Amino acid sequence: MRKPKKLLNDPNNVRQEVMQGLVYAYNGKLTAIPDYCAVYGNHISNEQVVVISGGGSGHEPTFAGFIGEGGIDGCALGEVFTSPSPDQIIELTKATENGNGVLFLYGNYSGDGMNFDISAEILAEENIATKTIRATDDIASAPLSKLSDRRGVAGIMFLYKIAGAASQFEKYNLENLYQVVAKANANVRTIGVALDGCALPQSNNFNFELDENEIEIGIGIHGEAGLRRQAMTSSDEVVKEMIDRLCDDLPFQTNDRVCVLINNLGALSNTELLVITRKVGIELNNRGIIIHDIAVGHFCTSLEMSGFSITLMKLDDELQHLYDLPCQTLGWRK
Amino acid sequence: MRKPKKLLNDPNNVRQEVMQGLVYAYNGKLTAIPDYCAVYGNHISNEQVVVISGGGSGHEPTFAGFIGEGGIDGCALGEVFTSPSPDQIIELTKATENGNGVLFLYGNYSGDGMNFDISAEILAEENIATKTIRATDDIASAPLSKLSDRRGVAGIMFLYKIAGAASQFEKYNLENLYQVVAKANANVRTIGVALDGCALPQSNNFNFELDENEIEIGIGIHGEAGLRRQAMTSSDEVVKEMIDRLCDDLPFQTNDRVCVLINNLGALSNTELLVITRKVGIELNNRGIIIHDIAVGHFCTSLEMSGFSITLMKLDDELQHLYDLPCQTLGWRK
Repeated sequence: MRKPKKLLNDPNNVRQEVMQGLVYAYNGKLTAIPDYCAVYGNHISNEQVVVISGGGSGHEPTFAGFIGEGGIDGCALGEVFTSPSPDQIIELTKATENGNGVLFLYGNYSGDGMNFDISAEILAEENIATKTIRATDDIASAPLSKLSDRRGVAGIMFLYKIAGAASQFEKYNLENLYQVVAKANANVRTIGVALDGCALPQSNNFNFELDENEIEIGIGIHGEAGLRRQAMTSSDEVVKEMIDRLCDDLPFQTNDRVCVLINNLGALSNTELLVITRKVGIELNNRGIIIHDIAVGHFCTSLEMSGFSITLMKLDDELQHLYDLPCQTLGWRK
Repeated sequence: MRKPKKLLNDPNNVRQEVMQGLVYAYNGKLTAIPDYCAVYGNHISNEQVVVISGGGSGHEPTFAGFIGEGGIDGCALGEVFTSPSPDQIIELTKATENGNGVLFLYGNYSGDGMNFDISAEILAEENIATKTIRATDDIASAPLSKLSDRRGVAGIMFLYKIAGAASQFEKYNLENLYQVVAKANANVRTIGVALDGCALPQSNNFNFELDENEIEIGIGIHGEAGLRRQAMTSSDEVVKEMIDRLCDDLPFQTNDRVCVLINNLGALSNTELLVITRKVGIELNNRGIIIHDIAVGHFCTSLEMSGFSITLMKLDDELQHLYDLPCQTLGWRK
């Protein structure tokens, strides 16, 4: 059976070594809590609500790579594709909270939800106030009528951007921060496509396999089944369907201002990603949708999965103002 | 025979579609000269020397993705892994030059060198002054005694950074700009490693193949043969050898201040790239080399090649000042 080729040390140490790599990559701007595999930024001030995230490793730079000025404040790292534990979340929260409350902001997966909820209950007993937003941007993961069942994928980056700007620069209190990030979450939609799977470091077996000439529309970032598999076709045809589906879902309409995220899931070439970007631009222009900003690159990956996702976030004046504020993180600078 | 899976339209249109994708990705900050497949930034002022690059497509965001404030000014796009023609370079130069002279800054490949040199001669006849720097950072491509034979790889990004800051912000004249970029070039060293090859869009055959358990030390960004092939080993062992080779070459020594670039060549997971980053940090720390800044991500790719490169640039006060100035490009923001 075909195996992906990986360059690692002990596959049992991936999470710890990723955490140490992040500390070097941040070069003095990040503090680790090694016993709990959690990290937080050295920028956190006493005047802000703290924004904490967490999730499985394997999606780098998501999630911890968006810590920084104008980004999130701390992150608990789970094992690859596995939720962080309540212990990790609680210790990280205690290390960073400053009396202004804490926003938990993470992708909508059952393990993450359970462990963050347990943490919130325990922290509440110690009078640490938290509120929770679960990113639900993947339109392929559940119908619109079950919006709260949808999974979170690359669109969480836009929520981090809004949350970081509102908390750090505009000093929103916890309730107002919750409201604006909830609004952003309601305005974000993503859909992904896979050409090829990825493999967990420990087993090194592909978590799904596609035929030589097959792609999957609507793939999840852990390889969750999408909407359908089909024969390879042209890039333009695939992108047109993705934009159609995204625009129908919110809906996004003529004269809407949007931010666009064209995300490489891992092994796709950036050459193909720019061919995709061209068609995304053409399709949005054809619909009279106004591109306020566009980010193209590797933001939320799935190990070495070959594929990409497209995210749109509809702006109003408040979201646009927050989006336009600066951001200095490993994964995204603006 | 195994083939890579690509999502494209007509493979003969890749270069044009990448150019159009760049225009959308820059969202109003980039102008295309479609008939010559060249692009330039809308930031160019009349008070600066213009910095022009060019090279084959397939390395995105290199080369054109470093156009912008604090980056380069224009770029001629060759077909995938192919040099741009003199026509492209000449038209781009005429569209952007402003009487202050033009620095040609590109990787040291014979086709690029020939076509830029022809362009420089023709432009000289029209009284447009140019000077040329060829990036020669790949230590695996020729011995130190033949430094000017070395190829340019990911390290060109640091030269772009220095050139953009010196020309746009500090208004260096052509001679002084040439001198400082030549100094930066002399201070930059890169080495790469491949786990797996890549394939040109038109043939879709791998340009080199490695066995299931084999890696290649010293690979070039078009798959040029490296120093040797060997059996897969631990990430730490590979990185240690790379840092040893880099440090021996310049040499980089205790108390040197360096900028570090850890570059994903394409399909390697960012998870592995952070494990690599950890060991780079440890090795440089062990040598007492001071990490001034570190960039981790996809900067100079080789289509879907799986692999990575490590670049070091030694700083002096002038280079550090220029490096620390801001940079707003598609491929790198600071």
